[in-house]
Amino acid sequence: MRKPKIVIIGAGYGGLMTTVRLQKLIGVNEADIVLINKNDYHYETTWLHEASAGTLHHDKVRYDIRDVIDRSKVDFVQDTVVEINKEGKKVILEKGEVEYDYLVIALGGEPETFGIKGLKEYAFGITNVNSSRQLREHIEYQFATYNMEEEKNDNRLVLVVGGAGFTGIEFLGELTNRIPELCHEYDVDYHKVKIICVEAAPTVLPGFDPELVNYAVSQLERKGVEFLIGTAIKECTPDSIIVGKGEEEPREIKAGTVVWAAGVRGNSIIEKSGFEAMRGRVKVQPDLRVPGFDDVFIIGDSSLVINEEINRPYPPTAQIAMQQGEVVARNIAALIRNKTELETFTFDNKGTVCSLGEDDAIGVVFGKKITGAKASFMKKVVDNRSLYMIGGVGLVVKKGKFKLF
Amino acid sequence: MRKPKIVIIGAGYGGLMTTVRLQKLIGVNEADIVLINKNDYHYETTWLHEASAGTLHHDKVRYDIRDVIDRSKVDFVQDTVVEINKEGKKVILEKGEVEYDYLVIALGGEPETFGIKGLKEYAFGITNVNSSRQLREHIEYQFATYNMEEEKNDNRLVLVVGGAGFTGIEFLGELTNRIPELCHEYDVDYHKVKIICVEAAPTVLPGFDPELVNYAVSQLERKGVEFLIGTAIKECTPDSIIVGKGEEEPREIKAGTVVWAAGVRGNSIIEKSGFEAMRGRVKVQPDLRVPGFDDVFIIGDSSLVINEEINRPYPPTAQIAMQQGEVVARNIAALIRNKTELETFTFDNKGTVCSLGEDDAIGVVFGKKITGAKASFMKKVVDNRSLYMIGGVGLVVKKGKFKLF
Repeated sequence: MRKPKIVIIGAGYGGLMTTVRLQKLIGVNEADIVLINKNDYHYETTWLHEASAGTLHHDKVRYDIRDVIDRSKVDFVQDTVVEINKEGKKVILEKGEVEYDYLVIALGGEPETFGIKGLKEYAFGITNVNSSRQLREHIEYQFATYNMEEEKNDNRLVLVVGGAGFTGIEFLGELTNRIPELCHEYDVDYHKVKIICVEAAPTVLPGFDPELVNYAVSQLERKGVEFLIGTAIKECTPDSIIVGKGEEEPREIKAGTVVWAAGVRGNSIIEKSGFEAMRGRVKVQPDLRVPGFDDVFIIGDSSLVINEEINRPYPPTAQIAMQQGEVVARNIAALIRNKTELETFTFDNKGTVCSLGEDDAIGVVFGKKITGAKASFMKKVVDNRSLYMIGGVGLVVKKGKFKLF
Repeated sequence: MRKPKIVIIGAGYGGLMTTVRLQKLIGVNEADIVLINKNDYHYETTWLHEASAGTLHHDKVRYDIRDVIDRSKVDFVQDTVVEINKEGKKVILEKGEVEYDYLVIALGGEPETFGIKGLKEYAFGITNVNSSRQLREHIEYQFATYNMEEEKNDNRLVLVVGGAGFTGIEFLGELTNRIPELCHEYDVDYHKVKIICVEAAPTVLPGFDPELVNYAVSQLERKGVEFLIGTAIKECTPDSIIVGKGEEEPREIKAGTVVWAAGVRGNSIIEKSGFEAMRGRVKVQPDLRVPGFDDVFIIGDSSLVINEEINRPYPPTAQIAMQQGEVVARNIAALIRNKTELETFTFDNKGTVCSLGEDDAIGVVFGKKITGAKASFMKKVVDNRSLYMIGGVGLVVKKGKFKLF
């Protein structure tokens, strides 16, 4: 009897969690498991703001996939997905193709630029290891160049962050820690540096508790961040952004660095492969399968699950992706054992912590609001938890965040 | 009775040596000593190839001027020289002016680009702390950007060094050490990187012993450097250089980084101030004074001293600048004590060592040819010697180069 073949594409939070759970649940003789990923490493997307600011080395935010998978059970293929042929039940890769009986699409999201002119070309992203280290190096290069100029271009030291959502705020927190170091490293006067956050929504961190939002804003303002709220980026040029607020005349802000940290959409492979989607996200069934395709699961940033309480989709997070991965692993195990009853996914929100740099954060954990050092400590607990869930204690010891007192 | 005022402009090897010698030779009541420098730090020009390649942090190549001067005897002024009014006996600074009775011009050299189009705009220089860290960051940014590109631009990983003189060769040595680290840091395939050295002269390291030159070339070639000898850079563009060899058709070499390490000329302040000079260098009298100006000494890269043996000028080096500084200090002490007989400067060549990266070098020391680890060790001795000469044992301990076995 031919063994079913389970193919997981993407080794982010969702895909890797699916893989490590499946390799525990399923015997070698029950199924073949193939994990496909572009890189041979997994990276902690939720830590990229640190690598981007330069406060944490990018090698600390990634680890070798082969360190966490059981290679006697899982075949790892390093390749890039080009398209999914869902009718032919195969995945087209850059260097070949792979057939599947069950497919888990866990390709992660992509930045959503809302068609804003110039953003794709001129703004930096906090998207992956490559983009983060490029951003870090770009910022350092601006500082390194400043003292070389005969006519000092102060705009070189202006950093604009587009988006005051989770990523934007966490990146701002790291930046305010990093800028004094950069000033010291490159002999730049601290007062010459300007950090501006532009957010189109009427508030910072929409959806967060207003009291915590106020705390975050005042802490970041104290450290030098200027917030332009209710202000939209209309265009990005090689050395500036054009912003507009309501009926006001749009104006130009010159900046040496523009970072786009607003908005995630689903993976473009989803639409390319003909799945029905909204901004690249597929509204999955309660069992996380794609309507009409009983052999295809989608989890993580390219899946859309409605929060019934507020009748709006859950925002894409690492937490939800990992919980989905656990359910998918159990559902696939059930399917290959010919069980027809599949488990329904419900999101169990354990809380959210948004860091504001070293030693400061805001959050809601188990329904309680926390700020400051306590929240910052909880942030590290959260960060270590995802390591633990995927790689156990060994990975926490190797890559975990500990503060040495 | 009014005390004479000695003004030293420039705190490089020559200027700083003059200052520390003067502060020992002269009593507080004999003269006022003023040292003027653009930065509040001295940097080791001969170590900049390391800071530029990123093998040594730039803070290791500089130290605070106030750490080596005796502030009860020397007034330190941080300012930039604009011009010298030699008839009015004053130095015009950006923020003021200073009168002098005796002036020591030790402003250092400037890169000589021989009017080659685009070099000033697009090539990086190994000239000072600012230019070195900009070059280091530029190279890192090229590596960081490579993996971000959808269409990989391999030319981004081409590094061209213009000039196979001392600085060019030493920089190449460091680069060959640094490139594997960069490849690892930015996930770049080592084989994609290309290092090319272009030299217009018919040989590498002109003036060096041919046996040592052969050793250097074969060592660097073994580490991946391609030499284009007898080849002139005709033009530098934002992403390439145009080279020509003899009668051959000029050709373009695409490169992400072009470093100009060929040729030093005297400081442009010299010509601006109306001194008679050749490429910014003034042929000084045997007592190091400027002909016709008995109160003005010029030392270091802006001075020109003929090597009688070969009837050609000595190349500008740290060694000659420091020896000049010692003589100038004694001659000024003589002048303020109304002695008319001044000391004649003769260069005492203690040897030259050219490093080829970590653990390798070539050199002639006390007339003996050396290569490899021995030469590399001697290079560190030479480097520590200039620290010792200026700042004593304390400075060697603080900033010296030691290899820990």
